[in-house]
Amino acid sequence: MRIYDIIDKKRHGGVLSKQELEFFINGYMKNEIADYQASSLLMAICIMGMNDEETLNLTRAMISSGSVVDLSKFGSLSVDKHSTGGVGDKTTLIIAPIVASLGLKVAKMSGRGLGFTGGTIDKLESLGDFTTSLSQSQFISQVEKIGVCVVGQNEALAPADKKLYALRDVTATVESVPLIASSIMSKKLASGASTIVLDVKVGSGAFMKNATQGKELASAMIKIGKGYGKSVCALITNMNIPLGYAIGNSLEVYEAISVLSGRGEERLRQVAIALSARMVSLSLGLDIEEATKMVEVAISSGKALEKLREWVQAQGGNTRYIDSPELLVGNTYAYEYKALQNGYISKINAESVGISSMLLGAGRTKKDQEIDHFAGILLKNTLGDYVKKGDTIATLYAKDKSLFEGSVKMLDSAISYSSSKPTNEPLIFDTVS
Amino acid sequence: MRIYDIIDKKRHGGVLSKQELEFFINGYMKNEIADYQASSLLMAICIMGMNDEETLNLTRAMISSGSVVDLSKFGSLSVDKHSTGGVGDKTTLIIAPIVASLGLKVAKMSGRGLGFTGGTIDKLESLGDFTTSLSQSQFISQVEKIGVCVVGQNEALAPADKKLYALRDVTATVESVPLIASSIMSKKLASGASTIVLDVKVGSGAFMKNATQGKELASAMIKIGKGYGKSVCALITNMNIPLGYAIGNSLEVYEAISVLSGRGEERLRQVAIALSARMVSLSLGLDIEEATKMVEVAISSGKALEKLREWVQAQGGNTRYIDSPELLVGNTYAYEYKALQNGYISKINAESVGISSMLLGAGRTKKDQEIDHFAGILLKNTLGDYVKKGDTIATLYAKDKSLFEGSVKMLDSAISYSSSKPTNEPLIFDTVS
Repeated sequence: MRIYDIIDKKRHGGVLSKQELEFFINGYMKNEIADYQASSLLMAICIMGMNDEETLNLTRAMISSGSVVDLSKFGSLSVDKHSTGGVGDKTTLIIAPIVASLGLKVAKMSGRGLGFTGGTIDKLESLGDFTTSLSQSQFISQVEKIGVCVVGQNEALAPADKKLYALRDVTATVESVPLIASSIMSKKLASGASTIVLDVKVGSGAFMKNATQGKELASAMIKIGKGYGKSVCALITNMNIPLGYAIGNSLEVYEAISVLSGRGEERLRQVAIALSARMVSLSLGLDIEEATKMVEVAISSGKALEKLREWVQAQGGNTRYIDSPELLVGNTYAYEYKALQNGYISKINAESVGISSMLLGAGRTKKDQEIDHFAGILLKNTLGDYVKKGDTIATLYAKDKSLFEGSVKMLDSAISYSSSKPTNEPLIFDTVS
Repeated sequence: MRIYDIIDKKRHGGVLSKQELEFFINGYMKNEIADYQASSLLMAICIMGMNDEETLNLTRAMISSGSVVDLSKFGSLSVDKHSTGGVGDKTTLIIAPIVASLGLKVAKMSGRGLGFTGGTIDKLESLGDFTTSLSQSQFISQVEKIGVCVVGQNEALAPADKKLYALRDVTATVESVPLIASSIMSKKLASGASTIVLDVKVGSGAFMKNATQGKELASAMIKIGKGYGKSVCALITNMNIPLGYAIGNSLEVYEAISVLSGRGEERLRQVAIALSARMVSLSLGLDIEEATKMVEVAISSGKALEKLREWVQAQGGNTRYIDSPELLVGNTYAYEYKALQNGYISKINAESVGISSMLLGAGRTKKDQEIDHFAGILLKNTLGDYVKKGDTIATLYAKDKSLFEGSVKMLDSAISYSSSKPTNEPLIFDTVS
């Protein structure tokens, strides 16, 4: 087998066999296939596409490049969630304790934020000494004991994905449904859960700009997951505006606690409940109405909040924040952001709000950059609210006053006003299973 | 400008600007653009194509990567020829002295053979101490004096083409009309001639397998040449069977001398006359009938053969071979290759004959390999001849008898027989200008 022939086959629209895709990934990981050959093949894949079987086989080959977490002792109870990334997306912090309180097992790996999107690990680390570096046995034993543990990405899982992604990032070969789907799913499947619920975000603050694209990606990921023998489904959710009022790490934890306390922004609450219910339904084999009811009771009974407290304690975080979540807000300078005119809020561009929050210190533009866990934006209003010029519609937090100027400019461009009330946008565009 | 955006643009079928193509070539030559980015862009070009303007601009950028030979002192008299490569193609050895004897100026760079195709430089070097390494001033001064000089490739011309070709060769991005056309033309145009006649070979022994592909490539090259201000035309010629009877270096020189002496195989003679006449017609502004007559007279009068003698002498070759060309044949062991059955010869696969000759020592599989200048194949019959089983239809030459076995096997597979006389194939499929 020669990589030249494999590239040439895909270039002419041929279908690559399992053996050919394995040869590619193995050879690339052993440096027997050069970057310039891999990038040439990736470009051919981007343009000519891959069918479902090829996409599954590529994913399998990437999984085989590393180790797989063994969660078999939890059987069908082990669950995972993946969001394709958005602004203000703190659903993991809400969902994990909900489903753990219902007996599911959340052994989850998460990432840090980059660019305008946040990361669960950064959010958790705003809780004092919360540690996300645990040994494999500590990780599994915590899941066994309390049903939930979230740690940083394990570099031993699907290393081929990391190597390929770095190459795609500099060769204009990122944008490709089969490549995105296999990249996400190789890591998820190597993480070992039996049930995976995907939250595919679409809109201005997401990689996928519309529901059609989102559905295409969701279908591709579901096919891979099912082909690998997992229970998988996906929600296609709206990311035209930020999810919830809080953008920024400690602020988002604060908002997650609000939802778990039975309050919180309604759209965020709905998305968190919908995703939790799908996990419960798939994992326990219940219909969605029953699962939804269980999730609602987990919140209203206080059991989910109690599980969050257990979880934070288990990973060394400060539980004082759970009892007094207001401690997570206002630990820096604050800036009252005011409406520029009278009118209904007709647009809150999620990407621009994400960048605005990043400029305050809440995010990073490069990997390994320091962030300010207390910086960010707390919106007071959402789409369709009527505001008067000069009303405070958001509070900005930063530890250096000079950071406000750029951030305010981004917010000015992010928020639009109209004289008539805008029509409501759907929150969940579709469910794919 | 970023290479990422250029790759992404072509990936989506965009048209690259002159500035973008210059940025690519310049950056690649300075190693500021990595191989893996170049190969990704090349694959996108292979699949999405390039229009005529892009192809011209890429060619210009590749020419600008090196130096250009200044032949301006010869005005419109400077001529060049390019063959896309075939088996038994010794036309340069015939054409150069013909047109030089008519006052044209042939300042030509040629290559060595590789794989199943031969190279003019190897053929010339079978003439004793013929040297193909001359200084630029020796080169120009010989052209001034006798009208013809052929030397090896000048590495200073279009170095970007060399670097890109090496990358294309390992990334399945060779096969692409705009890339092939710009590769060939960048070197040809940097060589400086005013008039360029292209011999696009099509058939089993050529890169282009049919006349339609050949015509497409010819048109692309002509557009580049004209866009660069040159007089250019192309003949699309048949390479389903070897050109002439001789395959192998000294044997091909022997056959070239035969044609210049008014004998020689008829198809070879016709192609050589047609190409020479196009050069004379374009360069001197004469109609093709008149130019053809001049070429025929150059042969029949002996002037072209006399020019060959002058040429060989000027470059240090042994002119005894011109007077006694039979000295070029039979300097090794000979093997009589016999017809396997009665019948008309219905096929002589050019590629297989080329490989058969290579196996005898006449060619090389890797650059810089030693070759045997006297090895090769002298056919006695051609397509449509009736032969009887056991008739000698070719003589094989090699300096080691053990080389005959593999070569004979290749010939067995190359030659087919039929009970009815095969229809004649056209020799020149088309003229493109």
